[in-house]
Amino acid sequence: MTLPNDLPAAPDEALNQRLQFLLMADRLKNVERRTFVSDASRHENSAEHSWHLALAVLLFADYARDQNIDIARALQLALVHDLVEIEAGDTYVYDAAASATQTMREQEAAHVVFGVLPDAQGAQFRSWWDEFEDLKTPEARFVRALDRMLPLFLNFVTQGTAWVEHQIRADQVRELNLPAMEEVPELREYCEGLIKEAEKRGFLRPAENSDAV
Amino acid sequence: MTLPNDLPAAPDEALNQRLQFLLMADRLKNVERRTFVSDASRHENSAEHSWHLALAVLLFADYARDQNIDIARALQLALVHDLVEIEAGDTYVYDAAASATQTMREQEAAHVVFGVLPDAQGAQFRSWWDEFEDLKTPEARFVRALDRMLPLFLNFVTQGTAWVEHQIRADQVRELNLPAMEEVPELREYCEGLIKEAEKRGFLRPAENSDAV
Repeated sequence: MTLPNDLPAAPDEALNQRLQFLLMADRLKNVERRTFVSDASRHENSAEHSWHLALAVLLFADYARDQNIDIARALQLALVHDLVEIEAGDTYVYDAAASATQTMREQEAAHVVFGVLPDAQGAQFRSWWDEFEDLKTPEARFVRALDRMLPLFLNFVTQGTAWVEHQIRADQVRELNLPAMEEVPELREYCEGLIKEAEKRGFLRPAENSDAV
Repeated sequence: MTLPNDLPAAPDEALNQRLQFLLMADRLKNVERRTFVSDASRHENSAEHSWHLALAVLLFADYARDQNIDIARALQLALVHDLVEIEAGDTYVYDAAASATQTMREQEAAHVVFGVLPDAQGAQFRSWWDEFEDLKTPEARFVRALDRMLPLFLNFVTQGTAWVEHQIRADQVRELNLPAMEEVPELREYCEGLIKEAEKRGFLRPAENSDAV
């Protein structure tokens, strides 16, 4: 097997497959999210977001509702949770049309992406990604909560730069994020306050029927 | 305590400190390394590099010389290993002048960076960073090996873009990286081949006395 870019082959085929995966994974650094980095100088990408998320796992583990969170597992989920975007691109949570096809697109992408690895390792990485998607374990729900908190936090810090650009309303942010944060009650409560404050400061548009209330 | 950017305070001071740390950590996304991302479109930053490194921990754990590597610990080291660069900046391994003052600059930075956290958590994060720096555990040596392998790999893939720019010689790459890769023998051997091939293709300058040999 010849690796891309004429990379010399290692004597061991399993090592080649892992190197090829490592190289493919590098492309996640060029997948742009809607959220801006904290100084609002540019959009963040999914690779650095994945690092920020894994760091948040370490920072907030003792705020998880389940005090027996397996940290190694939570980190594994965080590190692979966006890898399918290499093939499927990032889906903006407030884009209803893109969200409708997201599952199908990402399932196909997962097949391609994890298929690059040796079988056993590919199955292992895939199982972490599936676990995150299925939200059936405390680790998956914990990581998902943080994954929703981070863009909310960065959007607030950048004075709603991405929210304003996409004309997002407070009720959308509330409905799409807070229910996914039940696993970390204190952060959920904090984010509820952030949304209220963001609406007050004009970072978010008011709820659609708020004039009539 | 008021958080930067008028971020509303949480009722819990420890939570505020963690949020402030999370916000400060975001600045690692703007710390530029000399290495380019794999399509050579731009330099990579230390946050996305840290993600790539943590992913490499998952990919290559069974190539470690010590088969009892603690994966959670290795991931913790990888995720925090560059955080001090928020204050100290990235130090190019081939820049002798900057490397001479690196330890002092980074020790001061560590004091500032980890001091943002609540005491117990700050001490824990600091202990992971110290462990990585001290290279006394198999986990630290394993992560260090991968940390040296990654830029070498990306430099090769980008046809030596950063090496050529900084006129780096093959003997420098060999001496500064291979001894740090003993913990992962098959990757060390693979990288030795990459360096030879890079010299052959002109991505690296020949060793200084090679004309005389």
